[in-house]
Amino acid sequence: MTLIVQKYGGTSVGSIERIKAVAEKVAKLHRTGAKVVVAVSAMSGETNRLIELAKGLSEQPNLREMDVLVATGEQVTIALLCIALESIGIQARSYTGSQVRILTDNAHGKARIREIDGHRIHTDLDAGRVVVVAGFQGADEQGNITTLGRGGSDTTAVALAAALKADECQIYTDVDGVYTTDPRVEPKARRLDKITFEEMLEMASQGSKILQIRSVEFAGKYNVPLRVLSSFEEGAGTLITFEEDVQMENPLISGIAFNRDEAKLTIRGIPDQPGVAYKVIGAISAANIEVDVIVQNVARDNSASMTFTVHRNDLKRSAEILKQTAADLGALEVTTDERIAKISIVGVGMRSHAGVAAQMFEALASEGINIQLITTSEIKITVVIEERYLELAVRTLHSAFDLEQTGVQEV
Amino acid sequence: MTLIVQKYGGTSVGSIERIKAVAEKVAKLHRTGAKVVVAVSAMSGETNRLIELAKGLSEQPNLREMDVLVATGEQVTIALLCIALESIGIQARSYTGSQVRILTDNAHGKARIREIDGHRIHTDLDAGRVVVVAGFQGADEQGNITTLGRGGSDTTAVALAAALKADECQIYTDVDGVYTTDPRVEPKARRLDKITFEEMLEMASQGSKILQIRSVEFAGKYNVPLRVLSSFEEGAGTLITFEEDVQMENPLISGIAFNRDEAKLTIRGIPDQPGVAYKVIGAISAANIEVDVIVQNVARDNSASMTFTVHRNDLKRSAEILKQTAADLGALEVTTDERIAKISIVGVGMRSHAGVAAQMFEALASEGINIQLITTSEIKITVVIEERYLELAVRTLHSAFDLEQTGVQEV
Repeated sequence: MTLIVQKYGGTSVGSIERIKAVAEKVAKLHRTGAKVVVAVSAMSGETNRLIELAKGLSEQPNLREMDVLVATGEQVTIALLCIALESIGIQARSYTGSQVRILTDNAHGKARIREIDGHRIHTDLDAGRVVVVAGFQGADEQGNITTLGRGGSDTTAVALAAALKADECQIYTDVDGVYTTDPRVEPKARRLDKITFEEMLEMASQGSKILQIRSVEFAGKYNVPLRVLSSFEEGAGTLITFEEDVQMENPLISGIAFNRDEAKLTIRGIPDQPGVAYKVIGAISAANIEVDVIVQNVARDNSASMTFTVHRNDLKRSAEILKQTAADLGALEVTTDERIAKISIVGVGMRSHAGVAAQMFEALASEGINIQLITTSEIKITVVIEERYLELAVRTLHSAFDLEQTGVQEV
Repeated sequence: MTLIVQKYGGTSVGSIERIKAVAEKVAKLHRTGAKVVVAVSAMSGETNRLIELAKGLSEQPNLREMDVLVATGEQVTIALLCIALESIGIQARSYTGSQVRILTDNAHGKARIREIDGHRIHTDLDAGRVVVVAGFQGADEQGNITTLGRGGSDTTAVALAAALKADECQIYTDVDGVYTTDPRVEPKARRLDKITFEEMLEMASQGSKILQIRSVEFAGKYNVPLRVLSSFEEGAGTLITFEEDVQMENPLISGIAFNRDEAKLTIRGIPDQPGVAYKVIGAISAANIEVDVIVQNVARDNSASMTFTVHRNDLKRSAEILKQTAADLGALEVTTDERIAKISIVGVGMRSHAGVAAQMFEALASEGINIQLITTSEIKITVVIEERYLELAVRTLHSAFDLEQTGVQEV
């Protein structure tokens, strides 16, 4: 018998009307004879409301108690969804993370799932009940309530699917699938029927914020087929597979991801000595600032220059630290730029094909777009350009790699 | 070391400011070196908000899921109170009913406590922590969330006090103690320093709605000293004791309770035969209507008449049923009256003193107040009168029994 895990996010359960609609969707699947497990988030706005209450009491609320507090958000949703299901004749039973039990470590606010006991859920499924589980939460060995961090409901759904050996994990969102790129930037963007886990990982980490990265990693690790669908429209969505199918049928690249949240810092004229890179980046990391792209070059005078990007919110702090490092190292200058954008082309197909990078650079050059930084991974090529060229670059690359076309692309 | 269980109701924790004030009260007691356990209700309005959400989905929401839903109300409060305590330097730890664990039967919405495991709480108390427990909730043997019914937080506090062998259970409310009668009716009403459990039971069941009856029964059963105090004002409140102290020192009566929620039904001219009372009252009970006072008399013609009271909301339905019964029995007539009030004088002192009833009836007669029904128990005498005389009757009895005076009353 087919076993499906569905996940509905905060917007999908954001009102009584929306919860009724979700109940209808769940009931429809249940009536086909499938076993159905549903993971849900808090109603949209609820988590923020709870956090505001806590902020009224303390600027740095106790982390254990914050988890007790915000975990109520999903608990409300599981109860309401079960009430809605029961009222239309579907037997349903809710479980909090502690009840399932979803065992996590004790890192409050960012716990990781260690184990899920599927026994109780299987008993309910065998009795013909729909099981509704609170996303985003669990309990540690001592029974303390933990949360997986915001957006963690995706991870709950995937972990449930893995533990229950589900046939598919369906993530319902406010988009109807994964697109070749953001349709707001390139109207010709096309919904992908399939994408591999690796590609999805690269897309997600680049700002295609459909799924939490951790949930995709989880799905890949446990071979859980993941499907992204719209909770507002009908449609098959996008299936994220762990098989690469037959390589031949894969297009060269699957999508274009981009990001405007970063800023760039450059330090020039540093002595080209061992340990210099560590001194520069180490000082930034020590301040808990995450560094993304890092590029280092050696100039003709044997002095080195290094450029890296950080989140724009961290630019000011990073610049102060970097200026101190520059003084310590006797470097020439520090410059910063926050009018940058990062664009990546992603595709497992590029693994076995040379020339993809060249094709990308040529396309950008043909539009007069200067490339400031380049980094590459096995299935991704990333460039940093001036922010004002972002939309033009996305459309140019989308067209250069024929992303509006379905099916195989010849190189 | 002194161990105190405190309970704060919904109004006492109704806002962030109120929660801060409760934290200060708890901290003050904790700083005296006492071990402190706190049971709390949901913030006022929260439980109703949750119920309204469920009502939007179903007219008769699934009971198991209603418990999952409303239990979040107290869970929010325990987390917020702990955050408030930690922010003023008091180590605190919250527990839901499931976590403690407060084991109940599985009667969702009206569960009864079977057992409390005090082990985890004692460990925290020994480590110098304040323990904050969600009132009103528990879990059954299978770990399903249950609730004790509305107002059940008092019961949680008393059960905790019993399980932990606390020195005192302090119930913080919006009144500063138990009064000889309602001060809104008799401005001379006096706060009692002490009252016995039996008296409190009779007072509470008559509408002095300070404490849930079940919590008082519980406290009596387990010999838990109970104190009612105001969470808004300083003061010693009223201690509810299980000792009757020395009988000599008890006043004759302790208080006057009253109730305007009832209506009266009379059936006249029924054949005076065995089984008639059962036919009349049985038909009402079968409709799940609670009957309070019942009085039966036999008239000169050997026909019987019976009068009883029900909640005013049940009057119409009761009258319909009674008319049917009257037709079946060949009774003469059915009359109803909803302009009635019930007044009781309560006191363990009356056990050993004759003449209390006479003194009560004399006082009412002296003001021209007609008594329609009389019932008595060991420590209570109840009369039903016309509603318009209620305030006059309360003041008359308050004065007749010298309730404005502290100390011993001579008979």
